[in-house]
Amino acid sequence: MTAPLHEPRPGTPDTQQGMRRRNLSRVMHAVATDGPLSRATVAQRIGLTRAAVSTLVDELIRSGLIEELGPQRPGRVGRPGSALAVSRRGPAGIGAEVGVDHLAACAVDLSGAVRARAVRRVANRGRAPGPVLKELSVLVREVTARAEREGLRPAGLAVAVPGLVARGTRTVVRAPNLDWHDTDVSALLPTPAEALSVLPLSVDNEANFGALAELWLGEGTPADFLHVSAEIGIGAALVVDGKLLRGTRGFAGELGHVPVRPEGPACPCGGRGCLEQYAGEEAVLRAAGLGPGEDRVGLLAERAAAGNTDARRALRGAGTALGIALTGAVNLLDPRAVVLGGALSRLAPWLLPALERELTRRTATPAAGVTVSRLGSDGPLLGAAHSVVRAVLDDPVAVAA
Amino acid sequence: MTAPLHEPRPGTPDTQQGMRRRNLSRVMHAVATDGPLSRATVAQRIGLTRAAVSTLVDELIRSGLIEELGPQRPGRVGRPGSALAVSRRGPAGIGAEVGVDHLAACAVDLSGAVRARAVRRVANRGRAPGPVLKELSVLVREVTARAEREGLRPAGLAVAVPGLVARGTRTVVRAPNLDWHDTDVSALLPTPAEALSVLPLSVDNEANFGALAELWLGEGTPADFLHVSAEIGIGAALVVDGKLLRGTRGFAGELGHVPVRPEGPACPCGGRGCLEQYAGEEAVLRAAGLGPGEDRVGLLAERAAAGNTDARRALRGAGTALGIALTGAVNLLDPRAVVLGGALSRLAPWLLPALERELTRRTATPAAGVTVSRLGSDGPLLGAAHSVVRAVLDDPVAVAA
Repeated sequence: MTAPLHEPRPGTPDTQQGMRRRNLSRVMHAVATDGPLSRATVAQRIGLTRAAVSTLVDELIRSGLIEELGPQRPGRVGRPGSALAVSRRGPAGIGAEVGVDHLAACAVDLSGAVRARAVRRVANRGRAPGPVLKELSVLVREVTARAEREGLRPAGLAVAVPGLVARGTRTVVRAPNLDWHDTDVSALLPTPAEALSVLPLSVDNEANFGALAELWLGEGTPADFLHVSAEIGIGAALVVDGKLLRGTRGFAGELGHVPVRPEGPACPCGGRGCLEQYAGEEAVLRAAGLGPGEDRVGLLAERAAAGNTDARRALRGAGTALGIALTGAVNLLDPRAVVLGGALSRLAPWLLPALERELTRRTATPAAGVTVSRLGSDGPLLGAAHSVVRAVLDDPVAVAA
Repeated sequence: MTAPLHEPRPGTPDTQQGMRRRNLSRVMHAVATDGPLSRATVAQRIGLTRAAVSTLVDELIRSGLIEELGPQRPGRVGRPGSALAVSRRGPAGIGAEVGVDHLAACAVDLSGAVRARAVRRVANRGRAPGPVLKELSVLVREVTARAEREGLRPAGLAVAVPGLVARGTRTVVRAPNLDWHDTDVSALLPTPAEALSVLPLSVDNEANFGALAELWLGEGTPADFLHVSAEIGIGAALVVDGKLLRGTRGFAGELGHVPVRPEGPACPCGGRGCLEQYAGEEAVLRAAGLGPGEDRVGLLAERAAAGNTDARRALRGAGTALGIALTGAVNLLDPRAVVLGGALSRLAPWLLPALERELTRRTATPAAGVTVSRLGSDGPLLGAAHSVVRAVLDDPVAVAA
């Protein structure tokens, strides 16, 4: 994935060529966000002359990234303005997700529309990475083929995984809930020449992609927020000025291992009293007296809704622990908002009261508001596919080349 | 303070004018960091042509920001290269500091040399902001006058305060150890026309300026680190890719109020068991059995060095609490390093063992290394003065205008 080209890379001089690339990106973003737009409106939005924008638009049309919807307002005097939109037959972003109990893939076009989607329920815990990724590649090929039949050109594949990914690599350093260690996804993902091998591949933590989805697709999401997500583990991602804070090694956001009660129960991570010991899925289900089975989070939500005392007490305990860990995070990071995503969004009605009580009584300055994601469990998959689309908008020249 | 101009502001189109300003800044930074340098070397460093660099250098010489040290290597064939250095009679950064028990000011030139400095011991706790800032302005005028006698032109004043400053303002929202609330420093700092009123003024938290000093002046400091500083309170600042993470309201870095033991002693902030209840100056001195008096931190260090059991136990307890709070911070932020500054740097020999033990046993992935600042208590004052100097290097055109 390329970095946004709105800014020259640090340390490199400005050049005419770099300026042109950045301005092409500005046109793409304007049209993708607010299109259809006339050339004149684009020029107004991004602060360039109509002539400069026309040259840029012509180049993007030739590259198949923008299309003209035909003349507007016919009958007026002068050359009719033609509305511009991002191409619905242009590049597509392919997203894929390895979950602890499912696999998924989807294709998203430049306008952000999901054009193909495939999901398979499968228990991946403890399976070797090879067979899991082989099964994932079948779903990827399926959505890729459907996208291609609709005239789209897959521009890249992004894979969300429930584990730590070393920054700038495609290696899952540690995914405790899959039992993967130092797994190079690019080496294991089967890539027959006719399909996946030509796609640029990126791999990232599901909490990171979930936060990006919230940033790009959430309604009214601010550019600075802490995204807390949970499936089996508890992860978080911090977005600052619209950018993900990844950490030096790419491991930022390990909210699940923030100590809540330093003398509490031992955690597999080596610590004691980590948040996951109180608010992780296993801990909450155990506290609620729920044994193994299908969709236990759904069952827990049902019981809590029905007023079951054990379920409510378990969720209150988890909310309190989340509130304590988030007090530390809010004190350190001062985000505009805290967004609960993933499985947490389904349980929010019973987690939020205890969570907000802790945050409010423990923070001197009014705490960041806590909101609940509308994307829920779809976040990571959508974030992955959209990351490819954003890369195209950020550097259209690279895709056209 | 202006943002670095290496990058165009988001959303603004690139222009030739913006490009010129950014390239002027690149020349200034190259000469300030590695000068004296010839024009040819500058051109090589920043990747522009010799001709382009000569035009930029001529403009910076005319503005009095760069000076020629005279021809080098005389006797060689061809036009002799003249070494370029930042002007020692150009703009100066004025830094000032309000401490709980001292006031200070200094002047730093473009090369980073401290050209004037004034410090006064004074107990500021509970004093009204007006008289404190009036006393500070006397020190500021003193160093400003000395800088001007040496031919320097003060380009701005930056004031470090032990409290939370609302982002983009000069208002101290809360400084519990001074008992200041919603104090607008710009309104209270006396500014007779002949001296301070013409200086651009910025105000920031001491932990922020301390971290910036570490970034700009520390030896081998990485571009990603968590800076932990303590005078009376405990603050922190996170630097990511060489930039301060300020938080939405400017309140990021409140490490002192991260919960360490959620059911622990009540804290004035409203929480319980905050880090300051275990590792704040008051808590540590009380635990070590030290009553009121001058330089009690120095006395504590002396006793610990002499093997005093109470002193060592108190510092071990503080180190453990710091280790627990930093485990959370490292899990969330994944910094390259943790740097201990301020009063903590003097006490590091007795804090570090317990601190590092907690960090190591509680974090699954090898923790960020902990280092000790060499700037110690000088950090905030130097960081403030250097912030003005950096603003000049980042946008030389603005100063020349």
